[in-house]
Amino acid sequence: MIMPENDGEMKARPEMRQLGLATDLYQLTMAAAYYDNARHERAIFELSVRSLPPGRSYLVLAGLEQVLHYLKELNFSAEEIDYLRSLSVFADVSPEFFSYLRNFRFTGEVWAMPEGTVFFAAEPVIRVYAPLIEAQIIETFLLASIDFQTLIASKAARIVEAAQGRGIIEFGARRCHSFGAAIYAARAAYLGGCIGTSNVEAGKAFGLPVYGTAAHSFIMAFDNERESFHAYHKVFPRSTILLLDTYDTVAAARVATEFGNQLGGVRLDSGDLSFLSKQVRAILDQAGMQNTLIIASGDLDEYKIAELLENGAPIDLFGVGTELSTSRDAPALGGVYKLVEVVYPDRREPKMKLSQDKATYPYCKQVWRESADDGTFSGDIIAMSDEQEQRGEPLLVKVMSEGRIIDPLPDLKQSQEYARQQLTRLPPRFKKLVHPEYYHVGYSDRLEELRNELMNDLL
Amino acid sequence: MIMPENDGEMKARPEMRQLGLATDLYQLTMAAAYYDNARHERAIFELSVRSLPPGRSYLVLAGLEQVLHYLKELNFSAEEIDYLRSLSVFADVSPEFFSYLRNFRFTGEVWAMPEGTVFFAAEPVIRVYAPLIEAQIIETFLLASIDFQTLIASKAARIVEAAQGRGIIEFGARRCHSFGAAIYAARAAYLGGCIGTSNVEAGKAFGLPVYGTAAHSFIMAFDNERESFHAYHKVFPRSTILLLDTYDTVAAARVATEFGNQLGGVRLDSGDLSFLSKQVRAILDQAGMQNTLIIASGDLDEYKIAELLENGAPIDLFGVGTELSTSRDAPALGGVYKLVEVVYPDRREPKMKLSQDKATYPYCKQVWRESADDGTFSGDIIAMSDEQEQRGEPLLVKVMSEGRIIDPLPDLKQSQEYARQQLTRLPPRFKKLVHPEYYHVGYSDRLEELRNELMNDLL
Repeated sequence: MIMPENDGEMKARPEMRQLGLATDLYQLTMAAAYYDNARHERAIFELSVRSLPPGRSYLVLAGLEQVLHYLKELNFSAEEIDYLRSLSVFADVSPEFFSYLRNFRFTGEVWAMPEGTVFFAAEPVIRVYAPLIEAQIIETFLLASIDFQTLIASKAARIVEAAQGRGIIEFGARRCHSFGAAIYAARAAYLGGCIGTSNVEAGKAFGLPVYGTAAHSFIMAFDNERESFHAYHKVFPRSTILLLDTYDTVAAARVATEFGNQLGGVRLDSGDLSFLSKQVRAILDQAGMQNTLIIASGDLDEYKIAELLENGAPIDLFGVGTELSTSRDAPALGGVYKLVEVVYPDRREPKMKLSQDKATYPYCKQVWRESADDGTFSGDIIAMSDEQEQRGEPLLVKVMSEGRIIDPLPDLKQSQEYARQQLTRLPPRFKKLVHPEYYHVGYSDRLEELRNELMNDLL
Repeated sequence: MIMPENDGEMKARPEMRQLGLATDLYQLTMAAAYYDNARHERAIFELSVRSLPPGRSYLVLAGLEQVLHYLKELNFSAEEIDYLRSLSVFADVSPEFFSYLRNFRFTGEVWAMPEGTVFFAAEPVIRVYAPLIEAQIIETFLLASIDFQTLIASKAARIVEAAQGRGIIEFGARRCHSFGAAIYAARAAYLGGCIGTSNVEAGKAFGLPVYGTAAHSFIMAFDNERESFHAYHKVFPRSTILLLDTYDTVAAARVATEFGNQLGGVRLDSGDLSFLSKQVRAILDQAGMQNTLIIASGDLDEYKIAELLENGAPIDLFGVGTELSTSRDAPALGGVYKLVEVVYPDRREPKMKLSQDKATYPYCKQVWRESADDGTFSGDIIAMSDEQEQRGEPLLVKVMSEGRIIDPLPDLKQSQEYARQQLTRLPPRFKKLVHPEYYHVGYSDRLEELRNELMNDLL
């Protein structure tokens, strides 16, 4: 087996062996063009989400740990450089550029909101201050990490909210965009409030609680349900959860009563879950099995869970797969990573693009969040980073200096707890599943003013 | 850097170092229950797609190469087994089970449709014949691989069809579900007909053509477009594509004429692409730059491309990101992997489940495809594998025996060509972007009959 030699890289990207080529080609052609034009100035880039996807009124930041480990470990192996040199596009690039790449390390400074922070459209969540080339090359990996994990953590938060305290288990590995994606889906789902995952590798990689018992095939492999239930229970006497819906859920529930109160739980995976859970609960209760849990799964999402609970379905735990792990109703996040300043030795130049519907805000920025007396969030202002006298607390904090992670990162359980606190501070009217109100995010007057000036200069 | 020691595993899963835990927990608890109940019979499982996602009238199979390498390399390291033993759920499982896992190899037989095959809902595309435990453990990885790559290859085929011969480049790495997913998205997009990708790592891993030049940030990093265009062209004199929409597309096109006919292309990334491409084409043509290509990108999908071409937009190449690489309009495929027979030494037992809306078809099956005299596909029949006298050609072929890949797999270019031929044989009425006809897939009379008998026995 191939074993990791480097714990840092493994944390960054268990799915990858080498990091240098984990990018789009144009990042590397731009790098060559900067290099051969001796453009070694520093620049400031900011990562933000252009607009909230349909059906989302807030986002939960996730994926920062992977980003920071990637930045810490990023380099180009000889093999990777040989590959680049074999591409005809690089035919006229100087050999010095490839020597530069061979010695490449990320040396920049990074500011970010902590993982688990609740944030909104347009807010910079990561700020990179580094030489142009370094800041550019990392764009693709940063976006792929933050976009995806944020999507899943945000979806998880909605589902957890809908479940009103009942546990949500992430069940979606098989529907993820490759098994590698499943590992990060499980991580982000946990960060967003899930109690665990069915994904064993994610369990091991991130120390997540893992859940799961048996599938329909196990029932079908025996002559009848009774036989299969007993075969399972014999091997897992302390943790059996019986799957009831292979043939006839109510009949199977009657068989389950043979196990009495030692039975951990039963799972329903199809049919009218509201009706069936009530039937099954009655059968279990009548047999004195008040402690046996009912777990429901099968194409669930936040809306279906809310409806089940509204109907009084006595379900204790939910397993949620596809809808959570692919964020099916909003499977892509419009994360962007934009140049906002070029820093020359003697001056700083603000930068913006005017592309139709995609114009950006120039200048290095900070996000300030105001809270009411009870601690609930009341509105955010995006200001220039050097504007004084903003109210509230600044959300971007320095996490990396000269390519090194400054403080030990919180562990995932701490980030989960931080996300939980953040979500508690977001008033319920912004968290409604349908027709939520939209949280106020504004720009400082000075930023608006200077942006208008710059826009007029450019037009 | 961590280097692969084993080429087979790298091909299987560049994103993973160890394979054993790339599964759901219940696969391993079921494995333990089978083991401790001495259930070592062989079984037949089939992988199929329950129903076509909205907006899809056919699918293109992709991901088989990864699956076969995974099966060839699958094993459990000592570290992985230690992790499993640390989980309380396994407390009562026999130590022999873990010794068994330590020596685990997949020893089964696999039949599959070749990558690039056009297929439809309900058709088994992979058949696994192996001891129950082996056939069960692999489910999660098989589904995650086939579901995702098939989604992307199928979406790519639609986009390529819409582009009527103009090239499509996969541009979506940043919006993929982690960078690991992006590698497979690029592979599957190429298999489905794209000419290449912006993803450098995928280019290296799978030998794909890579494309890309510069982003808005490169323009913005200079004082004006002219300066940045010249800085880029100096370094890439033979392959410059200039991005025009940072400030004002038409003004930038005029600047681009300074490079004359040596300019490879220009790219438009926002605004009214139909209007702008005509303006830009006129400016270039007037400057004698008939050979300079126009590339369009920016939230494109098959519908927008079809509309642009209908409007006569003179676009030569399209870069497609999010919509392709996440299959945004249908980001999950309902792939299922179902037990259909248990094979005892003296008999074979057909298996099916009756779960509401999820009932399955029992028996080991084969898919037969009939073609018209001109070679176009005219309809499929799903029959029991031992039924003789079916018309047409059988689609499932044996690809693995005793855990070994039988014949060298086709290389990706061959699979791309095979997919192209398959798509040519699918009549246009099934490929329409909107309101396509639905291709006929039926079951053999004998299979329907025996299924009804089995269903009556189970009820």
